[in-house]
Amino acid sequence: MCFKELEENFKDHCGIFGIYCPDGKLDVAKITYFGLYALQHRGQESSGIAVNDSGNIIYHKDNGLVNEVFNEVVLNHLKGYSAIGHVRYSTTGKSDRENAQPLVIKYRKGHMALAHNGNLVNAHIIREKLEQEGAIFQTTIDSEVIASLISRNRIKSENIEEAILKTMDEIKGAYSLLILTPNKLIAVRDPYGLRPLVMGKISNSICFASETCALDTIGAEYIRDVEPGEIISVTKSGIKSVKYNNSTKHLCVFEFIYFARADSYLEGISVYEIRKRLGKQLCKESYVDCDIVIGVPDSGTTAAIGFAEEANIPFSEGFIKNRYIGRTFIKPEQTQREIAVRIKLNVLKSNVEGKRVVLIDDSIVRGTTSRKIIKMLRDAGATEVHLRISSPPVVFPCYYGIDTPDRKELIAANYSTEEIARILGADSLEYLSLNGLNEVFDGRIHQFCTACFSGEYVTEIPENFNKYILEEGV
Amino acid sequence: MCFKELEENFKDHCGIFGIYCPDGKLDVAKITYFGLYALQHRGQESSGIAVNDSGNIIYHKDNGLVNEVFNEVVLNHLKGYSAIGHVRYSTTGKSDRENAQPLVIKYRKGHMALAHNGNLVNAHIIREKLEQEGAIFQTTIDSEVIASLISRNRIKSENIEEAILKTMDEIKGAYSLLILTPNKLIAVRDPYGLRPLVMGKISNSICFASETCALDTIGAEYIRDVEPGEIISVTKSGIKSVKYNNSTKHLCVFEFIYFARADSYLEGISVYEIRKRLGKQLCKESYVDCDIVIGVPDSGTTAAIGFAEEANIPFSEGFIKNRYIGRTFIKPEQTQREIAVRIKLNVLKSNVEGKRVVLIDDSIVRGTTSRKIIKMLRDAGATEVHLRISSPPVVFPCYYGIDTPDRKELIAANYSTEEIARILGADSLEYLSLNGLNEVFDGRIHQFCTACFSGEYVTEIPENFNKYILEEGV
Amino acid sequence: MCFKELEENFKDHCGIFGIYCPDGKLDVAKITYFGLYALQHRGQESSGIAVNDSGNIIYHKDNGLVNEVFNEVVLNHLKGYSAIGHVRYSTTGKSDRENAQPLVIKYRKGHMALAHNGNLVNAHIIREKLEQEGAIFQTTIDSEVIASLISRNRIKSENIEEAILKTMDEIKGAYSLLILTPNKLIAVRDPYGLRPLVMGKISNSICFASETCALDTIGAEYIRDVEPGEIISVTKSGIKSVKYNNSTKHLCVFEFIYFARADSYLEGISVYEIRKRLGKQLCKESYVDCDIVIGVPDSGTTAAIGFAEEANIPFSEGFIKNRYIGRTFIKPEQTQREIAVRIKLNVLKSNVEGKRVVLIDDSIVRGTTSRKIIKMLRDAGATEVHLRISSPPVVFPCYYGIDTPDRKELIAANYSTEEIARILGADSLEYLSLNGLNEVFDGRIHQFCTACFSGEYVTEIPENFNKYILEEGV
Amino acid sequence: MCFKELEENFKDHCGIFGIYCPDGKLDVAKITYFGLYALQHRGQESSGIAVNDSGNIIYHKDNGLVNEVFNEVVLNHLKGYSAIGHVRYSTTGKSDRENAQPLVIKYRKGHMALAHNGNLVNAHIIREKLEQEGAIFQTTIDSEVIASLISRNRIKSENIEEAILKTMDEIKGAYSLLILTPNKLIAVRDPYGLRPLVMGKISNSICFASETCALDTIGAEYIRDVEPGEIISVTKSGIKSVKYNNSTKHLCVFEFIYFARADSYLEGISVYEIRKRLGKQLCKESYVDCDIVIGVPDSGTTAAIGFAEEANIPFSEGFIKNRYIGRTFIKPEQTQREIAVRIKLNVLKSNVEGKRVVLIDDSIVRGTTSRKIIKMLRDAGATEVHLRISSPPVVFPCYYGIDTPDRKELIAANYSTEEIARILGADSLEYLSLNGLNEVFDGRIHQFCTACFSGEYVTEIPENFNKYILEEGV
Repeated sequence: MCFKELEENFKDHCGIFGIYCPDGKLDVAKITYFGLYALQHRGQESSGIAVNDSGNIIYHKDNGLVNEVFNEVVLNHLKGYSAIGHVRYSTTGKSDRENAQPLVIKYRKGHMALAHNGNLVNAHIIREKLEQEGAIFQTTIDSEVIASLISRNRIKSENIEEAILKTMDEIKGAYSLLILTPNKLIAVRDPYGLRPLVMGKISNSICFASETCALDTIGAEYIRDVEPGEIISVTKSGIKSVKYNNSTKHLCVFEFIYFARADSYLEGISVYEIRKRLGKQLCKESYVDCDIVIGVPDSGTTAAIGFAEEANIPFSEGFIKNRYIGRTFIKPEQTQREIAVRIKLNVLKSNVEGKRVVLIDDSIVRGTTSRKIIKMLRDAGATEVHLRISSPPVVFPCYYGIDTPDRKELIAANYSTEEIARILGADSLEYLSLNGLNEVFDGRIHQFCTACFSGEYVTEIPENFNKYILEEGV
Repeated sequence: MCFKELEENFKDHCGIFGIYCPDGKLDVAKITYFGLYALQHRGQESSGIAVNDSGNIIYHKDNGLVNEVFNEVVLNHLKGYSAIGHVRYSTTGKSDRENAQPLVIKYRKGHMALAHNGNLVNAHIIREKLEQEGAIFQTTIDSEVIASLISRNRIKSENIEEAILKTMDEIKGAYSLLILTPNKLIAVRDPYGLRPLVMGKISNSICFASETCALDTIGAEYIRDVEPGEIISVTKSGIKSVKYNNSTKHLCVFEFIYFARADSYLEGISVYEIRKRLGKQLCKESYVDCDIVIGVPDSGTTAAIGFAEEANIPFSEGFIKNRYIGRTFIKPEQTQREIAVRIKLNVLKSNVEGKRVVLIDDSIVRGTTSRKIIKMLRDAGATEVHLRISSPPVVFPCYYGIDTPDRKELIAANYSTEEIARILGADSLEYLSLNGLNEVFDGRIHQFCTACFSGEYVTEIPENFNKYILEEGV
Repeated sequence: MCFKELEENFKDHCGIFGIYCPDGKLDVAKITYFGLYALQHRGQESSGIAVNDSGNIIYHKDNGLVNEVFNEVVLNHLKGYSAIGHVRYSTTGKSDRENAQPLVIKYRKGHMALAHNGNLVNAHIIREKLEQEGAIFQTTIDSEVIASLISRNRIKSENIEEAILKTMDEIKGAYSLLILTPNKLIAVRDPYGLRPLVMGKISNSICFASETCALDTIGAEYIRDVEPGEIISVTKSGIKSVKYNNSTKHLCVFEFIYFARADSYLEGISVYEIRKRLGKQLCKESYVDCDIVIGVPDSGTTAAIGFAEEANIPFSEGFIKNRYIGRTFIKPEQTQREIAVRIKLNVLKSNVEGKRVVLIDDSIVRGTTSRKIIKMLRDAGATEVHLRISSPPVVFPCYYGIDTPDRKELIAANYSTEEIARILGADSLEYLSLNGLNEVFDGRIHQFCTACFSGEYVTEIPENFNKYILEEGV
Repeated sequence: MCFKELEENFKDHCGIFGIYCPDGKLDVAKITYFGLYALQHRGQESSGIAVNDSGNIIYHKDNGLVNEVFNEVVLNHLKGYSAIGHVRYSTTGKSDRENAQPLVIKYRKGHMALAHNGNLVNAHIIREKLEQEGAIFQTTIDSEVIASLISRNRIKSENIEEAILKTMDEIKGAYSLLILTPNKLIAVRDPYGLRPLVMGKISNSICFASETCALDTIGAEYIRDVEPGEIISVTKSGIKSVKYNNSTKHLCVFEFIYFARADSYLEGISVYEIRKRLGKQLCKESYVDCDIVIGVPDSGTTAAIGFAEEANIPFSEGFIKNRYIGRTFIKPEQTQREIAVRIKLNVLKSNVEGKRVVLIDDSIVRGTTSRKIIKMLRDAGATEVHLRISSPPVVFPCYYGIDTPDRKELIAANYSTEEIARILGADSLEYLSLNGLNEVFDGRIHQFCTACFSGEYVTEIPENFNKYILEEGV
């Protein structure tokens, strides 16, 4: 999961963090900085923090990791009593600085900053409508669409919360939002709760984060998840919650399988526990007699531990990962292509030589990396390699903020499991079943979005929708 | 004029450059880069270039000088057959990167880039109106207001030119604009022609620039000035010109006195010639018997040569200027304050010692630097220092894009000429008369804006107008 | 082991890599770049590469990680048929750019570049002697002392190998060296082989590296370890080996315990295997009945797996580590001090709550981090925490290139094991015994340096030796 | 003279500055920073400052202008009571950071920092000798040779001054040196005084600088020039001066003609005055009837004013110079080559059109720029262009620190004056005569080095001497 270096895993869009300190005693920018640090796995492309500042909003954002974008001098300029922050993974290669968040705008009622995690499925339709009415757009991010709608809806609304409710009638898709105004911090989660958002407390301050690991890091206490369709406003006079009608729980199940950090809890459930149970369930379904169980680092490790425990086969480390691959890594040339994988992973020959290996991964996207890893194992002397995947086959694209490739590139959408095993060079391959997944979630899988496995999207998907649609024009 | 290092001269807003090469044979980004180099004296805060690119617009902009913001790699990415560029002087200290130009937006009809030189006097009123209707703003620059209006007016217009004409009905103030669309380059000048804009030709390409020195630099031939109220569109099929009704010539006279580069021609008149004639006229009005004539470098030099010629007193260099003062100059501490001036200027003692000196400058703003310079001359042994200013006293603020301080900081708005002489420590002080200025322009001074001398503004000025008004809210 | 972020583990000095490609067909600088990538765990402070270039030596080095110091443009300038590279961990805070390696010098016989891993114990004495004779020094690194001696010894030597042999008579301590001359690549290992150095082969090129993981990464085949006291010269005409008299094997045992990457083989022994056996042996010696075994990430993980296997207690992950801590991490303020640990590590509460935990680490230095980690486990609900250390207590400082603190800061040098357990808040604490260590190495522990446990140094240590001695004067 | 942008003028090596503040009340690093600012015209390639610091010397240096290399943070770290600084012009393209000065070394007697302006003619011979004895070298600068000799000579000397005197016996050529030890600041000038060095006083501190303009900038009072062959030591107990035998005055005459800043005084003579007198004398020798006199900016301006005064022809500005050409200027491509000159200089057409012009420059090196400038004048409509040079023809290379090209590239060494006029496209060309030069210096030209005109070098020049000789090997 670290550094996405195999360039094969799915990619999440963003991580968001916000804090409101009524008495101004905390350094909200610095706490947001630490909170974003804990969410860096959700996005490494750009980082930004906005703080309110006596009726105004000041901000800093740029391409880069949190510790590249911010330094003491910058943080010391960001003074205020409320802050929001954002880390972003570019899903399209369009990593223009202009698309960094939070988005800060001025509208009729003053200033507003927005940080968004998720993906709207009808942003392009709304943009077109607004453009028809004369609106201009300066970025390709959904946040600008949302801000425009809130601004328009504000005209005929009593307050910003009402404007947000009206906006929620119009936007479809996944969104966890943090909105900062000069005197409010507002957290919003879409009516399906597709992307996570939790609320915490540190001394007398309220904070929000994509995952609980950010609360742990800053020393905040977890209160509860923001509910699907909920709008929580924090002001000097306290917390107010409004609910959007017809909201139901549909948190993305891949947050558990892969995206979230293992130490996080989503909807009160330990991500780590789920991963381990996925491994155990996988073993129950597709046990194979072998000498060792290894995981693809880092994402397959926990499921591998679970599998090993269930199978009563020793868990072992199969690979050593280089922890120093940075963003500006120079790619080896054609003739040195083999180096590209080996520089990131090296096989622990002494562990796998002469062994029958069960190899666990959380998912397969295109299959290119899996093939290389299996070859590395065989080259190191593994006599058998049985690949087990701790989630069902991904056969449908995600429209809610996960960067899946086109269906035609999803290996499971184009080949049978047997064919895939052959393509990857595995002796056998088994995926977790959808039933098994349900089992792991104690029969409550209907409370999660599993569209990438089933094709059953929780919202309607506009015909010919293309998640890059906003980028294309620009 | 160089590096504005004495922080005393007036500051201009911006320089703009654009080129349209119908056959794509020229490297339009690189030519724009060289064009901006020649206009760098008009703005050192930020630089940007946008090019059209098969239906799209790509751009790069950032804080910094042209040669700091651009390098070979960046320029090589900016491929297209038409480009516009911008250099900006921040007038308010708000030099946020977000305010760099060109502004690139998407609207109903696709993409558009704008580069603006000048200042609208009613931008805040329009913004407020648009915000009432739900619009959002992301910058504090007039270009965003103009782009929003063009976008809205485009709905009910046949073409973009018509939308621009409608926009010109709404915006008041000074604007020379370059607008880039995927297939057009459009030059616009406000109905008073307050800020300069010239048109040139290089091989079969058409180009526009704030000043002719940019045409000279890239080797283009000067065709003519864009006329007040004129909209010139360049497309593959050629050039089309539309005129706004009721346009009259009112080019800012300070472009001649100080802003423009001496080798430029504005409305066909040599800036250098005017400066020299200002010096001659100044001498006619306020000759004083002296040993040498010196100019405050660099802005007073040409007028000093003119004065010296008319007075038949030797012109001499009185100061040596350090050419290496960069943007990140470390200020001396309180106790080293004297160094701040001396590091920039050193007096040529051998030239002024024991001499009666006529010191020529183009204008006085607050007077702080003039006082220091006069003291330096006296310390070096000048027996008399007679200050002569090659323009009338600046007693009214400029609302059209020049960064004048508040009236209460304009020394000439608060003291008599005699009092100023005393404050500055000059033996005598004389300004050029308004009549003399008229003389220099062959009696056609009514064709120029002289509001800073006379208070007669060519547009109405909204009550309580404050040129920082857009900044304040942000 | 990653990023040394807990600032508590021991620190190694350096990693070195070199390659000689007789026909110039390989891009030696780029291969060195990849080799250094694989050795980055040995030093993150500075990086450098030198290549020979038709009678000359060109180089690039600076503070920073390999991927920060080098880019395509720089690498493309480093053309030659032989290269050496270096990554450095500053042991003293003196991370002056001037101390980056390779050191490149000119002497009587032309140019020479040196890359050094290790620490001389008599460098200060030699420097003083050379200074008495008039020599000047520009850095505080041992390489400059070694280069000076080689240069002087070269006068009365037939060839550089002879000069190196003479130099080996003078210098005492640990050194693995790579020396590049315009036509030779020379690898040298001190007579005790205190620091590792291996030789490999890729097509017809010979390469050297601190560890085999670098050979694996570039796709080279391992040939053998450079032997203690061996000088291997590679030229166009092949490989020549010379041996220093009286050499014996004394590789630093801590390379196995902690420094080396787990996938490396040193003297033909798998580092991973040793670490797992250390865990098993530790269990044999100090088994304790518990619910789970966890390792301190990342350095305790492998021993923990071994311990768990031997104990037949489930191995579990106890912590999640943030993989994005960079070099410029902003330290939390006093009041946020708790964040400093939590930002790096978060406990997996669901795994440890209500459990009796065996916690495995490779060593304890000052104990400050261990105390924090044990507290985190207790706060997360662990009912018992038994700390087991997979090496004997470190009670003596290292003089051979490991950055150990003063004896008075080494917790094991000042307290009994029982006292340490109390200080750290552990329910019990046991170290591996020296006998156990011997066991793990099949009774051959006498072939390794274990001075930090036993105080039996392989060389004499000059009285009052202080490894910072060279720094102090500068 | 500014930015050397026409790449045609001669280039000086370096500027040096030093200060000793006995009571530590002045911020010596910051004053050195301002002093170097004033000397930036002497070198723009690298900048450095070293300060003493309780027995130690700390320093910072890098490639770049003074204001690029230093910032507040860096300067605040450089605390001490004495400092030396250096700006360097790379004469060979070898602008390696390693060659930046001051050079800081440790030797038998502790630390020492050196800053050097000038060029030794026998450095290569000394290096070879020292290398024969086993010395190593890490840079290609003369300072390292000088430091090595001082270190060796120190062994058999009572004090450092004696060691310097012995070193002066060995080194031949031009050197103005500042040497910083933990408790002394020492200024040294070669026995011919080839490069300038002046002494000043600010409150109770003593300072040294290449030129008086640096004293003026920091507000110091000029005391006197350091004399040829003089060694001045400043300590807490005061100033001590020692003289080398057989010293005679031979300051480089080109310091007056071109290098020094016009407001400086060298040996008590105003550089500005000399330049003006050179113009007057030039007129006396080669008057030509014309309409205007113009100078090549900036170096020909003062002589042009002098010529104009003597000729009673109006002085006029012929060109406008772009003040914003930075170090990283992107060169126009082949097809845009004309832009390269025009971006730097634009002709003032209105001033030269239809005029007979006298064009004044200080010297001609290769002639390439002169040819372009004359063409620009003609293109702008000048009817005649008469070139007058305010110094005699440069026909011999300089070995003392001026970057002259090979003789075969010096146009005056290869063509007659008439031929040169034809090559450059001038209607006539005249140089100042050597007699005229003598006249300007009141018959004391024998007190200056004029070797570049006459070939009469003050020192013997080692056969086959090549000033790049040290670079070649590296």
